[in-house]
Amino acid sequence: MSMNLCLYVAADTFTETRAKGTHVVVIDVLRASSTIVQAYESGVERIIPVAGVEEATRLLPTLDREKALLCGEQEGIKVDGFDLGNSPLEYVGTAVRGKTLVFSTTNGTTAMVKAAASDEIAVGCFLNLKAVVAHLISSGAERVSILCAGTNGLLSLEDFLCAGLMVNGLVEAYHNQLGLNDAAVAARLLAASMTDIFEVVSRSSHGQYLSNLGFKDDLEFCSRLDLYSSVPTVVDGRIQGRTQSSHR
Amino acid sequence: MSMNLCLYVAADTFTETRAKGTHVVVIDVLRASSTIVQAYESGVERIIPVAGVEEATRLLPTLDREKALLCGEQEGIKVDGFDLGNSPLEYVGTAVRGKTLVFSTTNGTTAMVKAAASDEIAVGCFLNLKAVVAHLISSGAERVSILCAGTNGLLSLEDFLCAGLMVNGLVEAYHNQLGLNDAAVAARLLAASMTDIFEVVSRSSHGQYLSNLGFKDDLEFCSRLDLYSSVPTVVDGRIQGRTQSSHR
Repeated sequence: MSMNLCLYVAADTFTETRAKGTHVVVIDVLRASSTIVQAYESGVERIIPVAGVEEATRLLPTLDREKALLCGEQEGIKVDGFDLGNSPLEYVGTAVRGKTLVFSTTNGTTAMVKAAASDEIAVGCFLNLKAVVAHLISSGAERVSILCAGTNGLLSLEDFLCAGLMVNGLVEAYHNQLGLNDAAVAARLLAASMTDIFEVVSRSSHGQYLSNLGFKDDLEFCSRLDLYSSVPTVVDGRIQGRTQSSHR
Repeated sequence: MSMNLCLYVAADTFTETRAKGTHVVVIDVLRASSTIVQAYESGVERIIPVAGVEEATRLLPTLDREKALLCGEQEGIKVDGFDLGNSPLEYVGTAVRGKTLVFSTTNGTTAMVKAAASDEIAVGCFLNLKAVVAHLISSGAERVSILCAGTNGLLSLEDFLCAGLMVNGLVEAYHNQLGLNDAAVAARLLAASMTDIFEVVSRSSHGQYLSNLGFKDDLEFCSRLDLYSSVPTVVDGRIQGRTQSSHR
């Protein structure tokens, strides 16, 4: 059993060539990955991640408007005319249960779209960290890419730490049968020296930005480790909800 | 006294907009920065960093061929027909003293060319780390970009560690008057947990690649901390040698 793991600190450098033949984990702790994991747990029918507001608006008429919600943010704030923003705390209960979410964010969902040529796209964050590691191990994937969404092409501290903890989990399972690129080694070394996730998330540039917008509760929520054990995956551009899957 | 510091883990994300109004330090530990610092110390007349072999070859006829050397690498190896490669250990004594070096490398010199729109470009590595920190402090620069050359758009462990040590040095001087982006915070946290530079450099992906090419001595040399106290700077696309400068 061996695995070759490449970590990308931001989505910009992730090309179709790099995507091909790999299993991808997209990490956008603040907040797309956390929100998608929360929505999935809340029993949505499906989630369609898109790369921008235009694409979201274009898709809407093709969907059952009774069940479809336009979701997402621009610069951290709910898009004008959209039903929901990008706070995981909105994605609970009947507001989303059984719904189809068309989900557009600046970095996270864009990264998911960029990874389309890969073999699988899993959505990861602190909320389902251990589950993602277990999922990768049980998949038997030999080539894995951890794709941090980052912020506008730059490294985000919270995504990088989350990635480092995932790398740590994989090192425990694979020992020296795990090949790591430099970014993965760096993230792992960083993660090894960190103890307080919430402290790091709060200190991150986007964490501070969201705090100033009044989303401090989101930071706390998104910092919770292993709250859930599900791993949403994007198949053919869609994340099929659990309920839906069991009826297929 | 305050400073805003942005670290870029690879040159690809560094745009002209990001360069403008900042003092830039380009770090390419393996090996462009280390080689340039060594050449500078060896008394070259000037160094012209260029972004590729074609540009280097194009420049050559405009220079005094008696004094000009074509220098650089592709995939770690000296370019066919060039006078020198990219090993700092070649850049000593009469081989380079008083010469003009046209210097082309895949990542490092390309990063220097990318930073052309900035206020100043300093060349940094472990060899002159403390000097770079002192240079930035005495410059009074309020906006500084540390530009890790990286490898083909991806983070390089050795550059990231070197950057982290520079950030540490600046934090000591500026305390909480130093604004850091997330990459700078991450590099600093990583650097704080590292003690053996050579060990990290040897472990890096490009370090291993160079070792396999037979350049193990280069890794050892490039890992030496504060061997030199000079900071070469690129002005109008050229690094003027020390001797030359004193005669201007």
